[in-house]
Amino acid sequence: MNTKFAQRVKKLIDPTLENSFKLSSKQGIISLANGMPDPALFPIKEINLAVKKLLENDGQKILQYGQTAGILELRKTIAQYYSNKWNKNISFDEVLITTGSQQALDLLGKTFLEKDDYVITENPTYFVALSAFNGYEVQYKTIQLKEDGVDIKQLENHLIKNKEKIKFIYVIPTFQNPSGNCWSTDIRKKVIKLIAKYNCLLIEDDPYSELYFDNQLSHSLISLDRQGLVIYLGTFSKTFCPGLRIGYIIGQKELIKKLSLIKQGMDLHSPTLSQYLIYEFVKDEPKFNMHINKIRLHYKEKCQYMLKCLDKYLQNKTTWTSPQGGVFIWLTIPGVDCRELYKKAIAHGLAFMPGYPFYANQPKFDTIRLAFATLSNEEIEKGIKILRDLIYNLL
Amino acid sequence: MNTKFAQRVKKLIDPTLENSFKLSSKQGIISLANGMPDPALFPIKEINLAVKKLLENDGQKILQYGQTAGILELRKTIAQYYSNKWNKNISFDEVLITTGSQQALDLLGKTFLEKDDYVITENPTYFVALSAFNGYEVQYKTIQLKEDGVDIKQLENHLIKNKEKIKFIYVIPTFQNPSGNCWSTDIRKKVIKLIAKYNCLLIEDDPYSELYFDNQLSHSLISLDRQGLVIYLGTFSKTFCPGLRIGYIIGQKELIKKLSLIKQGMDLHSPTLSQYLIYEFVKDEPKFNMHINKIRLHYKEKCQYMLKCLDKYLQNKTTWTSPQGGVFIWLTIPGVDCRELYKKAIAHGLAFMPGYPFYANQPKFDTIRLAFATLSNEEIEKGIKILRDLIYNLL
Repeated sequence: MNTKFAQRVKKLIDPTLENSFKLSSKQGIISLANGMPDPALFPIKEINLAVKKLLENDGQKILQYGQTAGILELRKTIAQYYSNKWNKNISFDEVLITTGSQQALDLLGKTFLEKDDYVITENPTYFVALSAFNGYEVQYKTIQLKEDGVDIKQLENHLIKNKEKIKFIYVIPTFQNPSGNCWSTDIRKKVIKLIAKYNCLLIEDDPYSELYFDNQLSHSLISLDRQGLVIYLGTFSKTFCPGLRIGYIIGQKELIKKLSLIKQGMDLHSPTLSQYLIYEFVKDEPKFNMHINKIRLHYKEKCQYMLKCLDKYLQNKTTWTSPQGGVFIWLTIPGVDCRELYKKAIAHGLAFMPGYPFYANQPKFDTIRLAFATLSNEEIEKGIKILRDLIYNLL
Repeated sequence: MNTKFAQRVKKLIDPTLENSFKLSSKQGIISLANGMPDPALFPIKEINLAVKKLLENDGQKILQYGQTAGILELRKTIAQYYSNKWNKNISFDEVLITTGSQQALDLLGKTFLEKDDYVITENPTYFVALSAFNGYEVQYKTIQLKEDGVDIKQLENHLIKNKEKIKFIYVIPTFQNPSGNCWSTDIRKKVIKLIAKYNCLLIEDDPYSELYFDNQLSHSLISLDRQGLVIYLGTFSKTFCPGLRIGYIIGQKELIKKLSLIKQGMDLHSPTLSQYLIYEFVKDEPKFNMHINKIRLHYKEKCQYMLKCLDKYLQNKTTWTSPQGGVFIWLTIPGVDCRELYKKAIAHGLAFMPGYPFYANQPKFDTIRLAFATLSNEEIEKGIKILRDLIYNLL
């Protein structure tokens, strides 16, 4: 049967990764691998009440087929929220509900990408975004990600050299996956100037910006854009819960209309019950904010504890990022092949994400990603200690 | 921005169709257009109880990220159900949960179809399947659909002539959308022989087979297939409710594994709450069967009433199918341009589906699709009367 597969699916995600996820959910393994939110923070009781109310009042509507673009109530609420936040007039028809942010990536890939087109990404970047774009047989140009954002010169070089072949730039400017880095306002403004100059689309993937520890970021890229070149991706997976699979795209009205037609062929529409449930929860903005505040505080504590452990156990020859939000810390361990490290870690009851799948082109093997959101302090400390022992044995 | 769109999305579904759906849900319009299930039959009370139990016992798991292939409990239940039904050993790893059947169509398109490949379809066929496959820039070869199934000679001719270019055959053998037709066992066996002879994949889309009015169909195509060439698509949208967006693919284990990797890039996984909800409901097979029996009886009555009205009001110059299950009746009105008829119908408070989008290649304009599941007898009669008046005015 294999000979009949389309070319586009021959380059698939490294299956070792799938194994890594499976292994890391095994009993007895301390997993620093998965970027899952802490399920202890899911508002289960409130969800239960909301479902009851929704089904009793509106069951027939909620369980029926719905509009491809999403339920109007939720689109309006999202539009209103960002109109206030960005001080910019966003209308409901500039919002499309998707089946998680992952569908948004696939949908934008399907809409824009042809074989051998270029996509510009940060280096490193989110590997499952790459697996969405790989489905359209693209090539990548990467820009080095520094602590305060992407290398502007490198970006402009790509835009000058490859203007015709570049379809869009894909970035996660705030508390990035995998690095945890956050672009400075200065870098953000420069990037917006550049895309305007070269008339280049940019996808701003933004799952983590609500999860700041102390200070709210003032500028998303889309809020700085006056040309309609930024397409913004949001999700409720980190601030509410991921199992409902609800994300959204914000973009120009004509684009949303087109995306909606294409989404129709992909899954008709996203689950209606999930959409109404989220609407019930987010329509009360002060309450929703209180909920996110709780998450912020919790993740900040976890992150600080992991950083403390890294300081205590791993100072020599290892460097790491110091995120101001989000759920990831990124380690560089020069001289260590982290594929080796990973195998040994699993044997010693520890899982993490090796860094190499996060590179669109040439992988580096001396990096790893740690996630802190779902662990107890004891697990974090135990995990970092195992990591230390393994690194010192390998160095 | 338009110049940057990928070629594949330039051929999109006719936007008049979208308008047709919008119009048909307007107040005061009798809509025979949408193939929605009757929401009065949704088991809302039971769903409410199930959600409560699920969230109280297992909320953290149910709202968290899940496995791409779907929750194990549901995959096992589906495997068990079809093992019994087909007298064939189906294992859970031959089942993949999808976000509705529509995602299954898109996923199979993404997996197999390259630009200018051929797909064989019935003529007419389900137009939203075409819109999924169109995303991969394919061409179509069609086989005439007769009352008892496809034209075998025509199918073999296509297979002989175009063997190299054909990726798969796409069919809805049971109570088809749009025709309501059901293939005979004889035709089914002949088609299975043909695909074995020419080693050709076949997708059996089967949303309606549980909705038989009197006699259960004994043979799905996959149950007759001994070569692993049939890929089966099922859904809970018609037997449970569509808003949860849960469908499934049954196929060879290695294929399911591959599809699962590709699905990961499309939406990570289908909504967990929806999956658990459906599992809670279908795991009790006798209870689920009683529920489907209720739907069968209800739809049978509606269908018979619509057929009676057609007999009463429309005997001259119009022919129609007499379905033994499902939710559609297909009318041929020779000499009438049903695009014209449609416009006039809307102006007179009636909506239906014009037939032309159901043809993969040359559209016919003298056919329409009627759906009966969601209407009262009064609405059905009123709708058919309006139709009669319009047809007699146009003829």
